[in-house]
Amino acid sequence: MTDFDRIFETPSQQTEAGHTRGNRVFRKHSTMVPSKPFDYSSARKWAPNADFNDLASFYPSEGEKQGVIPQAQLLELSAKYMELWQAKMPTSKKLQDAGRKNMLFGVFGSYQKDWETPILPFAKNCLGGKLWDVDGNEYIDLQFGDTPSMFGHGPENPAVRAAAESLMNVGIDPMMGTEEQAVTAKELEKHFQLPVWMHALTATDANRYLLSIARCVTGRPNIAIPNFTYHGTIDETQKMMPEPGVISRYHEMPQYYGEVDQGTKIFTWNDLESLEECLKDKSVAVVMMEPVMSNFGWAWPKEGWHQGVRELTRKYGTLLCYDETHTLGHAWNGSVGAQGITGFDMWACGKAISSGIPGAVFGMNREVADYVEKWQLQAGFFAGAGLGFLGNALTGNTMSTTALRVTMQEVMTPEVFDPLLAKAAFVRDGMEAVFVKYSAPFRAEMMGNRLCFHFISDKCHDPLTGITQIGFGGLFEFAHAYLWHHGLLIMPFFNMFLICPQHTQEELNRFLEVFDDMIAIIMGKKEG
Amino acid sequence: MTDFDRIFETPSQQTEAGHTRGNRVFRKHSTMVPSKPFDYSSARKWAPNADFNDLASFYPSEGEKQGVIPQAQLLELSAKYMELWQAKMPTSKKLQDAGRKNMLFGVFGSYQKDWETPILPFAKNCLGGKLWDVDGNEYIDLQFGDTPSMFGHGPENPAVRAAAESLMNVGIDPMMGTEEQAVTAKELEKHFQLPVWMHALTATDANRYLLSIARCVTGRPNIAIPNFTYHGTIDETQKMMPEPGVISRYHEMPQYYGEVDQGTKIFTWNDLESLEECLKDKSVAVVMMEPVMSNFGWAWPKEGWHQGVRELTRKYGTLLCYDETHTLGHAWNGSVGAQGITGFDMWACGKAISSGIPGAVFGMNREVADYVEKWQLQAGFFAGAGLGFLGNALTGNTMSTTALRVTMQEVMTPEVFDPLLAKAAFVRDGMEAVFVKYSAPFRAEMMGNRLCFHFISDKCHDPLTGITQIGFGGLFEFAHAYLWHHGLLIMPFFNMFLICPQHTQEELNRFLEVFDDMIAIIMGKKEG
Repeated sequence: MTDFDRIFETPSQQTEAGHTRGNRVFRKHSTMVPSKPFDYSSARKWAPNADFNDLASFYPSEGEKQGVIPQAQLLELSAKYMELWQAKMPTSKKLQDAGRKNMLFGVFGSYQKDWETPILPFAKNCLGGKLWDVDGNEYIDLQFGDTPSMFGHGPENPAVRAAAESLMNVGIDPMMGTEEQAVTAKELEKHFQLPVWMHALTATDANRYLLSIARCVTGRPNIAIPNFTYHGTIDETQKMMPEPGVISRYHEMPQYYGEVDQGTKIFTWNDLESLEECLKDKSVAVVMMEPVMSNFGWAWPKEGWHQGVRELTRKYGTLLCYDETHTLGHAWNGSVGAQGITGFDMWACGKAISSGIPGAVFGMNREVADYVEKWQLQAGFFAGAGLGFLGNALTGNTMSTTALRVTMQEVMTPEVFDPLLAKAAFVRDGMEAVFVKYSAPFRAEMMGNRLCFHFISDKCHDPLTGITQIGFGGLFEFAHAYLWHHGLLIMPFFNMFLICPQHTQEELNRFLEVFDDMIAIIMGKKEG
Repeated sequence: MTDFDRIFETPSQQTEAGHTRGNRVFRKHSTMVPSKPFDYSSARKWAPNADFNDLASFYPSEGEKQGVIPQAQLLELSAKYMELWQAKMPTSKKLQDAGRKNMLFGVFGSYQKDWETPILPFAKNCLGGKLWDVDGNEYIDLQFGDTPSMFGHGPENPAVRAAAESLMNVGIDPMMGTEEQAVTAKELEKHFQLPVWMHALTATDANRYLLSIARCVTGRPNIAIPNFTYHGTIDETQKMMPEPGVISRYHEMPQYYGEVDQGTKIFTWNDLESLEECLKDKSVAVVMMEPVMSNFGWAWPKEGWHQGVRELTRKYGTLLCYDETHTLGHAWNGSVGAQGITGFDMWACGKAISSGIPGAVFGMNREVADYVEKWQLQAGFFAGAGLGFLGNALTGNTMSTTALRVTMQEVMTPEVFDPLLAKAAFVRDGMEAVFVKYSAPFRAEMMGNRLCFHFISDKCHDPLTGITQIGFGGLFEFAHAYLWHHGLLIMPFFNMFLICPQHTQEELNRFLEVFDDMIAIIMGKKEG
């Protein structure tokens, strides 16, 4: 084949209309985003030239004035430890090379590509809080597949065990009601406040369905999200504002026809003025955001932010939806519970909520639910049977429902969370003690069972500072290579890691021991 | 809450702009669909007033001239057997009533709503080819969750057993490469021709990602689909052409901003002239369709259709993608294998391909894959790590990959398929013998392990006749109520059913025995 005229060779171009490829514009000036200038003050305190158009400019070079070794030296050390680590993976290398023949990018699931390491590690298995690779290397796992398995891999997690038993004894898809579904929905209300629930297979789908319901209920065309957020593989949430008044896609691979400035408004996190600019034309169906913004690093909500968002959304007739996929471990009742957030209209969560068994949920208040049911009665036959516009054949399946129920009833309980949070606090306190020991201008943070180390000492309330604190350009790269080489698997794309119920005191001590050495090297107190 | 001004009460309206709700138009005249008049001749032979705007007009009333009892009598019988069946479900009724408190429409997964029966059946479990409900009724299952479990429920299916073992021994989400992934991708090439593969969690996602890749590769904005098709919960594929020159959404619940006439062109299945009208402006990135069109009933490809589509798509630089989710059981190598279709650019499948364990795949030719990889290198950091625009944390997970591999290696083999197809042929032949016995103007069909009975005797090549043959308006309703009441679970929304490897000869005999009685009643040869 190949006798047809593909536009394979059209490069991206910067034209008057904006940034384009083929006939598509993926970055342009737009009134869908506020024109208010960005506040770089907090980011530029550490990275004097920080500019959202250039990731490299976010390196927190001011840390060197407080003893951090030079950037060039960190990059050298990072290369050294990456090489040492990768030398332990000959089998992974062989499998990766062979895998390129039949898999896009040589990986079967796109998240595996996120390692961006010369050799992709290949896993043999993972159980409880440990992971073994195909070369026999043993790791303390702290990434859990980027959240899904954060309550523990394999049968040590009662929800995983129950899922396996369900496969053997119940069968996965009768495509009928089951008694367990209603029990599970009631548990969801108990944990996360909203009364009406449905099941999806992924957090992306849960969010997609809520956006769809919000548009239907309000009759409004737009959604609004904070700048630099992530809510799954949804075109309309994969957009950002790289500079005031400019909207851009994250990438050039649009799934839908829509133009870049259609459908999505973007506001600045923790900035009510910017949010009001988005909402005031009353075209916004729903604001979707996280209880704590957690894409790269975290941006904590300022005092009054959530309440202010609720007041503004009410004022302009916009629904308010929280996506808790990344913040679920904040407490047994989620980050909305931990922060005392109430009165929201919609809530979605995937990944860990079913202990890593594929599954997600979306909830809504009774008023929204009543409207959707009423609408469905009016809408005629195409909206009825057989089209499955809010799910698919496996939504509500027995295995996922069981894993979800057991996670709610046996894992997301105060009894499991109290000791889990105590473990996380032990590690957070340990990291803080290390920073004091070496006078390092860094910061440790804890959001439930999720921990983070940041390469600036100020608490962060905006995503600009959020990028700065990651330390891309030397600190990030060295820290990852060093920890991985020493058998500590933190997440590949940010400085976050997770504590699971099965981690032992010995494992936590081991983490802090390696972490101590790492910070000593960064602060020039130890040879790297 | 509720002090904000939702547009809850805006009804749908017919305006000059088209059919609208709020400020959205969801049906309008458009050049995105052909203006060529529909050919109703085959449908109107049986349903003289068939009109795509009115489902009720598709009842095949001409059958009465050949002995079918009157429509009114069928509706009475349908009500009688529905009542008899539903009387056996007091526990289901109780659970359904209780479930309304915490679940939208009273169901946890939207497909459960598709039953549209006064009482939704609640399942206890399903194993092999059987299903038991919460009231102790035993069924021969012939629907398998609308396809996912069509190779058998529970551990009698080796892929389900392997998935359960994987949960217990391997852990579901290392978020790394695994040796099994490459083996699985190679098996996919062996079965379905294309060389490069990736994993998704649902067939919808597999299709979404392929649409996205197609737009990226070709630089073109539009996709094209046949009229009245289904490819999952994708806005752009949930559109239809209710009359020539008119495009409409299936429903008023759009997930994306896009206008109804953006992004999607629609052609008539088996009509190359109509397809060429769609393609000739070279705006179409990809044609997505099924090897056998199978939404309501089936529309078989006419001689030369697939080859003609390939030639036209090549001529206009459009990619060609098959969605095999519903046709997979046609042969051990899918319907593309059964029909000898080759040279397509993309292929997607979900549901049964992992034996009902959540999982789907999308494949592409080497040229497309090379371009996507090259594009990704050029596209800069936002398109790289952490954004997962072609998957999520659980794509490529160990459990789904194992289920997929074992399905390919131990279920989708000639050794399993030969006896499975022999069983299906036995039932098809049995149904045909019943039609002859009662001189019924009906038709039985087989596509691999999927069977169908149709309430007209002509073979169908278009979706208009496809709706006619279902018998909505009396025949459909009676057949379903009668079979369900007699313990035979066919799919709720069409006259299809599936034979699984575990069905016994006794069970197949039982089906034909009940089917004989059912046709006798319909033909007035037996009291109903």
